[in-house]
Amino acid sequence: MPDRKPDPKSADLPATQTRTLEKTAVDHQLDALLQERTEVDSLERILDQLPAADRAEAYRILYGDLPAPLTIPAGALAYAQEQDFELKAYRFQAAAEQRRAPRIVRLGAIQMQIQRPTSDPVEDQFQALVARTEVMIHAAGQCGVNVLGLQEAWTMPFAFCTREKQPWLEFAEPVDGPSTQRLAALAKRYNMVIVSPILERDDAHGGTIHNTAVVISNRGHVIGKHRKNHIPRVGDFNESTYYMEGDDGHPVFETDFGRVGINICYGRHHPLNWLMFGINGAEIVFNPSATVGALSEPLWPIEARCAAIANNYFTVGINRIGTETFPHAFTSGDGKPAHHDFGHFYGSSYITAPNGSRTPGLSRVRDGLLVTEVDLNLCRQVKDKWGFQMTARLAEYAQALTKAAAPDFQPQIIADRRSS
Amino acid sequence: MPDRKPDPKSADLPATQTRTLEKTAVDHQLDALLQERTEVDSLERILDQLPAADRAEAYRILYGDLPAPLTIPAGALAYAQEQDFELKAYRFQAAAEQRRAPRIVRLGAIQMQIQRPTSDPVEDQFQALVARTEVMIHAAGQCGVNVLGLQEAWTMPFAFCTREKQPWLEFAEPVDGPSTQRLAALAKRYNMVIVSPILERDDAHGGTIHNTAVVISNRGHVIGKHRKNHIPRVGDFNESTYYMEGDDGHPVFETDFGRVGINICYGRHHPLNWLMFGINGAEIVFNPSATVGALSEPLWPIEARCAAIANNYFTVGINRIGTETFPHAFTSGDGKPAHHDFGHFYGSSYITAPNGSRTPGLSRVRDGLLVTEVDLNLCRQVKDKWGFQMTARLAEYAQALTKAAAPDFQPQIIADRRSS
Repeated sequence: MPDRKPDPKSADLPATQTRTLEKTAVDHQLDALLQERTEVDSLERILDQLPAADRAEAYRILYGDLPAPLTIPAGALAYAQEQDFELKAYRFQAAAEQRRAPRIVRLGAIQMQIQRPTSDPVEDQFQALVARTEVMIHAAGQCGVNVLGLQEAWTMPFAFCTREKQPWLEFAEPVDGPSTQRLAALAKRYNMVIVSPILERDDAHGGTIHNTAVVISNRGHVIGKHRKNHIPRVGDFNESTYYMEGDDGHPVFETDFGRVGINICYGRHHPLNWLMFGINGAEIVFNPSATVGALSEPLWPIEARCAAIANNYFTVGINRIGTETFPHAFTSGDGKPAHHDFGHFYGSSYITAPNGSRTPGLSRVRDGLLVTEVDLNLCRQVKDKWGFQMTARLAEYAQALTKAAAPDFQPQIIADRRSS
Repeated sequence: MPDRKPDPKSADLPATQTRTLEKTAVDHQLDALLQERTEVDSLERILDQLPAADRAEAYRILYGDLPAPLTIPAGALAYAQEQDFELKAYRFQAAAEQRRAPRIVRLGAIQMQIQRPTSDPVEDQFQALVARTEVMIHAAGQCGVNVLGLQEAWTMPFAFCTREKQPWLEFAEPVDGPSTQRLAALAKRYNMVIVSPILERDDAHGGTIHNTAVVISNRGHVIGKHRKNHIPRVGDFNESTYYMEGDDGHPVFETDFGRVGINICYGRHHPLNWLMFGINGAEIVFNPSATVGALSEPLWPIEARCAAIANNYFTVGINRIGTETFPHAFTSGDGKPAHHDFGHFYGSSYITAPNGSRTPGLSRVRDGLLVTEVDLNLCRQVKDKWGFQMTARLAEYAQALTKAAAPDFQPQIIADRRSS
């Protein structure tokens, strides 16, 4: 590993996301390599080059029954173009039932990049993020979105890579803090439930920090919150330096537009986390995330989608975009030189239906709003068809896990005998 | 629904898979529709039309780090061509470690269609399947396969759609029955563990029927067996008419070539089933299956792969191919006319590594042998990197599931209040 001197200018903060500090030879090498790697817009844009029949068959195998396009107001599309974000809208259908009316709901997901350099004053960064989010919520409102999800820790850069407590903890706020108040007004105005993942400070419990999703009612008040259940220790996701595992179980929020759960980021790697939201009755589970290409991109289309299949609810995977650069170089525990950026957040937010069909993803590189109309009746219809709940054998797994968690657990291993 | 007369010729059995019984107008309509639906060979053949750079990026997003091709003996390739089956071989690598030598193992998976009309005498059908399987095992032996998996109930057509007990139960055999004896000789000859999923009859327990995988040692004896844990009630998968849920837990077989578990078919929809094999120490989990396109094809690439990701072991998904036609028409509980076939088994067998990277799939329409060299050290390497086991909170989930399985369970639901 090269011996690097501390950078004497590390206190000089870059004025824009792309401006960098004085560079070493290694930095220049890295830059050259990174410049060669242009990010593609999306997998779908690649697949769309295929001949029509092949493209249809590829999508069938890869995505299931593609949802139909949903017509949304021209004004919303024009606004999205003017404000430079992607706007895509789809519709999943369910069968008509005799004894239940359709329960048509529009889900929304917003993905975005940070708006100001991470070296700007915290308040400026926060206000810019709120302003951009409000712009996109206006579009969601025009599109009739009923339940909207934002990305993990949307009020801040994902600064946990740095392991610095300051200034990043200044982004933390109570559940009813500034971001909630700003969003609550829009939630009421647009009759829209908003799932708002923030960095929470809990002053009633020692001022502790939590990674928390606030659920804001379409009537403008807080319905409740959920804290991230599984905290990563992988790559630059040093979140365990900042907060502990969630302590509020697997709450499902019964809203005017369906029963909503939230599996925050790294919790998507834990099938039991998804399972408990299903057991508690969720019809829609958001997965607000912040995850980068080199680490997780091939897993991204798999996990939230598998959860929708296994639990027969809608899942909404949301990932931020862009490359976030931090003032002070940090190492990644991988023997490589210190660096300033976290890697590329690849967006690609998408929604999966309870039968495993999914929407195309949003862009890997652009801010975006994904709108999807669903009929919540589909959840029970798919449960009735596949029978996973009936065949789950929960009581036996409860026993098996109880044994597995005991200190004296012996795995069920059957050894081969050595002589034939 | 058309009123169909019983077919007076239903006792006249077709001489080949494609020959059908006397047809009604509906049958002819269905045939015409089916003829228009030509099955594509594979998703990969479609993707391979893309320009090289786009293809590489599509595979990176879809499949992760593609395994390298593995060089196998030219004789094996020639033999596969002569015997008309696909033979593909890949290699997943792991990092070198200082204190453990690499544990290089070759995994194999065989997918195939039935060899004789389902109306032939049972013994003839069975012998033809054994003969074809032996041919393909010879190729696996030439390729140095150490652990080989066959498809679910490989000794018979997947006749459970019919709900007829006879003649299909005549395919059942004890764990040490004819198929095991035939395979054991090859297992010893090629120093190869074979996972052999059969229809089991257990004469020591009332002559009951089970869907069972027999694990045959590379020294030619039976190491043990595992019975399918989750039995479907979906579509034409009427297996619950024939056998009950498995009663032997989640055994992991410690072989000379790694610790092996078997998640049979419909168990792949149950994340807890996958989880328990992981908890019991599996490094390789086979998923022998028989599943058809209209029902499950878009789920197929997701579930076994998600299990590899969540549990950090290798998974081997194996599905039979072809369309099986049965002598007597049967209905599917879907309001549609009775019919003779089960739909298209789409093959597409594939292997996923503990980091989520996967091989391309075998063909959707051809018999095939998939060989993949792996380093079992990769399992622990990925566990150490991602930390899913450390962050699993198993004891808390054991409690949660215990509550969820209780008759008086109340889901954790947080209701919105009605006034703002």
